[in-house]
Amino acid sequence: MRTKYKPWAKPYLEEHVEVMCPFDKLNDYKDYYLEIGSGKGQFLLEMAKKYPRITFIGVEMNVTCAGFTAKKLVENGINNAKLVCANAQVMTPTIKDESVEGIFLNFSDPWPKKRHAERRLTSNTFLKRYESIFKNDYEIVMKTDNVNLFEFSLETLSQNGYSFLKVSLDLHNSDVVDNIMTEYEKKFTEKGIKINYLVAKNCLIDKKMLK
Amino acid sequence: MRTKYKPWAKPYLEEHVEVMCPFDKLNDYKDYYLEIGSGKGQFLLEMAKKYPRITFIGVEMNVTCAGFTAKKLVENGINNAKLVCANAQVMTPTIKDESVEGIFLNFSDPWPKKRHAERRLTSNTFLKRYESIFKNDYEIVMKTDNVNLFEFSLETLSQNGYSFLKVSLDLHNSDVVDNIMTEYEKKFTEKGIKINYLVAKNCLIDKKMLK
Repeated sequence: MRTKYKPWAKPYLEEHVEVMCPFDKLNDYKDYYLEIGSGKGQFLLEMAKKYPRITFIGVEMNVTCAGFTAKKLVENGINNAKLVCANAQVMTPTIKDESVEGIFLNFSDPWPKKRHAERRLTSNTFLKRYESIFKNDYEIVMKTDNVNLFEFSLETLSQNGYSFLKVSLDLHNSDVVDNIMTEYEKKFTEKGIKINYLVAKNCLIDKKMLK
Repeated sequence: MRTKYKPWAKPYLEEHVEVMCPFDKLNDYKDYYLEIGSGKGQFLLEMAKKYPRITFIGVEMNVTCAGFTAKKLVENGINNAKLVCANAQVMTPTIKDESVEGIFLNFSDPWPKKRHAERRLTSNTFLKRYESIFKNDYEIVMKTDNVNLFEFSLETLSQNGYSFLKVSLDLHNSDVVDNIMTEYEKKFTEKGIKINYLVAKNCLIDKKMLK
């Protein structure tokens, strides 16, 4: 689903620096949760409202989507969620070691072609990148309607030492409570499309023992 | 799907000792593949025919099902597949250490009630049991139409140090080739039911390093 370009978005982002997190300020934050591909920001907003003591940082490279997110954060007076308008591939390597508590991957681009597999946010390339920025005992929480991306992620995550605390092939008919829906998720679910969900945990302690 | 009791089955098993493997003979075999819950034996038969140099042992506690399997093995002159007519819970602890190359779990009983979870063939209880009988670098290959059993297995396997070489939520529309269908699988697939599939690998070498 493409978001139609909105000319107001860019100036809005420039005006509302209070909800933005420029690259060189990112490492002022620590112990935060990252949402990579935060889309129009519904999930970021709801999480920030629900957990006011936790810091959330959303990463979104689409300026129009980022504009919608910024608007939501401004209009709701949110101060524990910030937005980075950047490409995750460029942004994640700049994150300070051990500063992230967890990552949310909601309806990430499936990059269906095999030759683009390394661009998927659960590819070996990305998982290696996440490894250093994470604290011990962190989690990756993923939701997707894309079966191939989900299968791929179960493989790569497990091969990179993650274990699954939870797997559901139909999130909305599961025992998972307190799920916060994204904009896409609402649309998909109304169409009867099943949502795949996983919570993956990687204990760096174990890995360090192996080194 | 229950198999109707056939009075010919028990005497047939007693007559055809050549395809049977009594408990006390099991440890005469080594480096074999185990199918736990071999049902009516189509998978065991086809695997034995396809890989004549490999030994397969099927475990099936239903006497009628075991009868059908025995008949298939006898009528096809198979000598690299044997049948144990026993409960896996009783049988697996008697297996000699490091004698099994891999385990096939085809359409295992899902034991849907939570209080029966430990009876599932991928429960922590069973996975601990398998651990000692396996050689290094072994695999568990699982097929099931039961979504809850599949989700459960992804969790328990990953939590027990397995990683997934392959996961498919729709085996018959995947890039997995050379799949051998079981009797149940044929029926399910004709009804349009999707088959979940995984290949899990556990490197005992890694585990031993952690001890």
